[in-house]
Amino acid sequence: MEAKGNISPNLTAGSARQYQPYLEAEWGFKNSWYPALFSSELEENQIKGVTILGREIALRRARGQVYALDDRCAHRGVRMSLRPTCLTDETITCWYHGFTYNLRDGILRTIVASPDDPLIGKIRLRTYPVAERAGIIFVFVGDEEYQPAPPLEADLPIRISDDKNAVAHILDEQAYVRGIHRRGNSNWRLAVENGFDPGHLLIHWDNQIIAATDRNLGLGALPVTEDAIKIIDEPGGPKGMMNMYNTRAYKFFGENREIGLKARGKKPYYARTSVFLPGLLLVEHWPAPGWAQYEWYVPIDNRHHEYWEVLVGRCTSPQERQEAEYLYEHFFEPLALKDFNDNDLFAREAMQSFYEQGGWERENLCAFDDATIVWRKIASRFNRGIQESPHRRTIHS
Amino acid sequence: MEAKGNISPNLTAGSARQYQPYLEAEWGFKNSWYPALFSSELEENQIKGVTILGREIALRRARGQVYALDDRCAHRGVRMSLRPTCLTDETITCWYHGFTYNLRDGILRTIVASPDDPLIGKIRLRTYPVAERAGIIFVFVGDEEYQPAPPLEADLPIRISDDKNAVAHILDEQAYVRGIHRRGNSNWRLAVENGFDPGHLLIHWDNQIIAATDRNLGLGALPVTEDAIKIIDEPGGPKGMMNMYNTRAYKFFGENREIGLKARGKKPYYARTSVFLPGLLLVEHWPAPGWAQYEWYVPIDNRHHEYWEVLVGRCTSPQERQEAEYLYEHFFEPLALKDFNDNDLFAREAMQSFYEQGGWERENLCAFDDATIVWRKIASRFNRGIQESPHRRTIHS
Amino acid sequence: MEAKGNISPNLTAGSARQYQPYLEAEWGFKNSWYPALFSSELEENQIKGVTILGREIALRRARGQVYALDDRCAHRGVRMSLRPTCLTDETITCWYHGFTYNLRDGILRTIVASPDDPLIGKIRLRTYPVAERAGIIFVFVGDEEYQPAPPLEADLPIRISDDKNAVAHILDEQAYVRGIHRRGNSNWRLAVENGFDPGHLLIHWDNQIIAATDRNLGLGALPVTEDAIKIIDEPGGPKGMMNMYNTRAYKFFGENREIGLKARGKKPYYARTSVFLPGLLLVEHWPAPGWAQYEWYVPIDNRHHEYWEVLVGRCTSPQERQEAEYLYEHFFEPLALKDFNDNDLFAREAMQSFYEQGGWERENLCAFDDATIVWRKIASRFNRGIQESPHRRTIHS
Repeated sequence: MEAKGNISPNLTAGSARQYQPYLEAEWGFKNSWYPALFSSELEENQIKGVTILGREIALRRARGQVYALDDRCAHRGVRMSLRPTCLTDETITCWYHGFTYNLRDGILRTIVASPDDPLIGKIRLRTYPVAERAGIIFVFVGDEEYQPAPPLEADLPIRISDDKNAVAHILDEQAYVRGIHRRGNSNWRLAVENGFDPGHLLIHWDNQIIAATDRNLGLGALPVTEDAIKIIDEPGGPKGMMNMYNTRAYKFFGENREIGLKARGKKPYYARTSVFLPGLLLVEHWPAPGWAQYEWYVPIDNRHHEYWEVLVGRCTSPQERQEAEYLYEHFFEPLALKDFNDNDLFAREAMQSFYEQGGWERENLCAFDDATIVWRKIASRFNRGIQESPHRRTIHS
Repeated sequence: MEAKGNISPNLTAGSARQYQPYLEAEWGFKNSWYPALFSSELEENQIKGVTILGREIALRRARGQVYALDDRCAHRGVRMSLRPTCLTDETITCWYHGFTYNLRDGILRTIVASPDDPLIGKIRLRTYPVAERAGIIFVFVGDEEYQPAPPLEADLPIRISDDKNAVAHILDEQAYVRGIHRRGNSNWRLAVENGFDPGHLLIHWDNQIIAATDRNLGLGALPVTEDAIKIIDEPGGPKGMMNMYNTRAYKFFGENREIGLKARGKKPYYARTSVFLPGLLLVEHWPAPGWAQYEWYVPIDNRHHEYWEVLVGRCTSPQERQEAEYLYEHFFEPLALKDFNDNDLFAREAMQSFYEQGGWERENLCAFDDATIVWRKIASRFNRGIQESPHRRTIHS
Repeated sequence: MEAKGNISPNLTAGSARQYQPYLEAEWGFKNSWYPALFSSELEENQIKGVTILGREIALRRARGQVYALDDRCAHRGVRMSLRPTCLTDETITCWYHGFTYNLRDGILRTIVASPDDPLIGKIRLRTYPVAERAGIIFVFVGDEEYQPAPPLEADLPIRISDDKNAVAHILDEQAYVRGIHRRGNSNWRLAVENGFDPGHLLIHWDNQIIAATDRNLGLGALPVTEDAIKIIDEPGGPKGMMNMYNTRAYKFFGENREIGLKARGKKPYYARTSVFLPGLLLVEHWPAPGWAQYEWYVPIDNRHHEYWEVLVGRCTSPQERQEAEYLYEHFFEPLALKDFNDNDLFAREAMQSFYEQGGWERENLCAFDDATIVWRKIASRFNRGIQESPHRRTIHS
């Protein structure tokens, strides 16, 4: 009998040394593409502020194009997005003293109240690469010297090739893309680890979507061979791992005899989960066959993430599109993105206080957490840099 | 004339060295019995979480019996009480991944999603001794090695032997016990010291119970001989002190001529206060003759305590019991436990910011604070250990 | 092209060394007069607590006279103003145990519950000089040894002598004085600097008072000669600086051609701003000709200030007074003190997070910030002492 707090040496103690970079990535992985806003959330001449990896970023749309710059005026440090001020199509103006910066390069173009100021042309705001695809505005957040930014595709899930009814990829032409995003009160890593974890089905087994569709969700899935987890390492492309639920490498449990618990639901159901750098999930054939759920867990700071839940379907006609909209609005969003995933959000937030008080050293991982350990190692190996805490570079008065 | 901040050397400066352990007991005294819940607050198969001395503890009732265990699942640290899950009568299950622990010894019995896991039988949660008496669930909080726990009686008030109309003891068979508990926003020591302090009557002199019953509360009570305070040191039993208001060792003031203030109320009234380790108060003949008020100030953390207000009467027949209920509900709870004691709670909370900023070194104690100093010394001498701050054993990320 | 974060060496880097005391004055300048309450806010026998420079001060009016003392009872540190207790005309009594102090010298006069206590006459509370003028209660906050306090006039704006239609001084017999005060969530220095800054007109150009009166506010004012700023250094009197808007030393901008922006409003308008130690603003001929606006930014702590907005008019007859009241209530307070100055408050608060994270080192000052730099130097040179952080003198438990 080991005292509480001892951890299985096989799974964690030795492994922890192998994912040290992951343990340090409290503020996320930099030099990566993250979703910032849905396209529909930023209209022409709107300015909105987001915070990603602790960086405050202003987004503006001008003549259709989206630009991203640091959201603190270089003059006296106010957030420009607090009072959006668009005076020309090529600039963003700080509402306070009128410091006006080029959207394209961030250079100070003029000062409203000081047109001949020596600072003009001499100082600038940091700008960020932007890619707007599939109705989502992505921003590449990281070091300014990290150039050029890799293609967006490298930070998205792979295209599925081992499934004859493969789900669409978010960048496919026929993809129907829709979703929500909201704030989660936990570190981003707890969110990622919750996403693909094969052992957390207990929190879902009485959810509305399961009950309403009489699905047999099972109690858990255990890896039984080495093939249970497939490493994904596409050259110049996505890095991640996949739980191979469609093979015999996993054993599914519908009953636990020790405590006399049986899974409910009669209809068998298949879905598969995979996770990718810098921290996003793909669930194939969920919430319905042929659909895919993408989830991003975008670090806001070390205690909060923006939780993105995006569904990707395939529509080849206006009728299919109409049907997809109907399903999304009356079934998928209320029962899957909300009721079902509310439980996941609850679980991640419930872990936060333990992990922010040293839980990384005190957790006791078990058999199905192999997937978690593999993910931590992959993330440690393939990330493009660890985001520094912004508090290290500031002076507190 | 001394500058502000100087303290009377007689009363405090020298004394402080004699109660150093008390000054260190910011998180309370461990290895002691504390009330956790009223019995009526925990029904069969309910799980509730409490925090005592900074420790998060889950309480569950199964087949009538109450069990107490650490309220953080050993797997990933979520509080089990957040989503009570009772799958058998002998276990408690974490809602997240189904880690299931024996109630009796805390050993991991199974994992819902991993029935053959190597962790099973190898890890466990800390359990705590529980005593359910007089309608209250008490938990013994302290070091696991501290065994056996002393009897509950040792951490309760003494039985009164010097009063022919002695109030009942809470464990008496005929005792009628009823009360409330609520959170107080101050360190537990400020709460204790407020309870028996003979000099704080000014905050009560216009209270509803005093006005409605025309009681002469007086302005204060001053110790005039060495016998004013009696040390209580029962072998293997309660440790504490009693203000001997029923002797000539105290002088009661009904007037302060310097400022022309006279106590109101015509009916003389007798009550007596005593205080015991680990921090509880007995007020005899309050709020009415023959009744006793027990108060516990249970440390939640270093800035909050759970304030327990319990009345103990004596009932020998159903009629007396009915009368006691009537008095409790329409007189004692609204006028004593609430209106009257609301003032005490207010006063303790008003001291908090001063004491958390070094007030223990800057206070200026006066004549009636002898009682406070005696208590500090007794507490320093008889406690069974000082609870460590939980922050010392955690790593902040 | 300099990287963001570099600062113009001409304006700031070199200058910063010349205003180091200002940078250290996070908690304000001590040994100065500050407004605490309007006279109308403290009636006979009322006790109110204020916090100035981090010091908690109780104010009581007795027989018409206002007294100020430390608002923490020397006994156990509760704020006396939490439950005002006035038992005599010469004392203030703590509501908890009845410690009763002389209003005049702060000496402990009696203890309600301990009339013969050895502490009586031996301990005392710090008292503060009070001046009640023009309907405002001013308190002199600083070192007890700093005696005598300079005259109130030394910490008020100068009397205007270079204007034939000079605005009234707040202490003039004919002065009509009225205003409001409210809490601002920023360091007091950001508030001062916002007040006289000639470059922040962009936040005002669409304000209701400007639109309703069709005033030409302009886009900014640039100093063009050395005479733009006049240093004020009256012997034994006010110290500060004045933006000489009434001379040719300033160039006013109504247009910025780079971005095609023109100021609205057809009616030319004249106002002049000056700022004085310990941190107050005078705006002449605002919000209407002949009126003056006084603003104090009283440090509460290092992150909050009390924002005082006071209008001073001149009334020589009851009719003029009636007219002034009408204008104040229906024009000046809603359109100037509220709508217009709400924008200033917003701007100061927007700077706070940047400056509390090292912004003083990272700001990029521009041409019109000359005024700010001059103010910082003047404040560094003429202040009567830097208030210490209260946290340096306390012990955190």
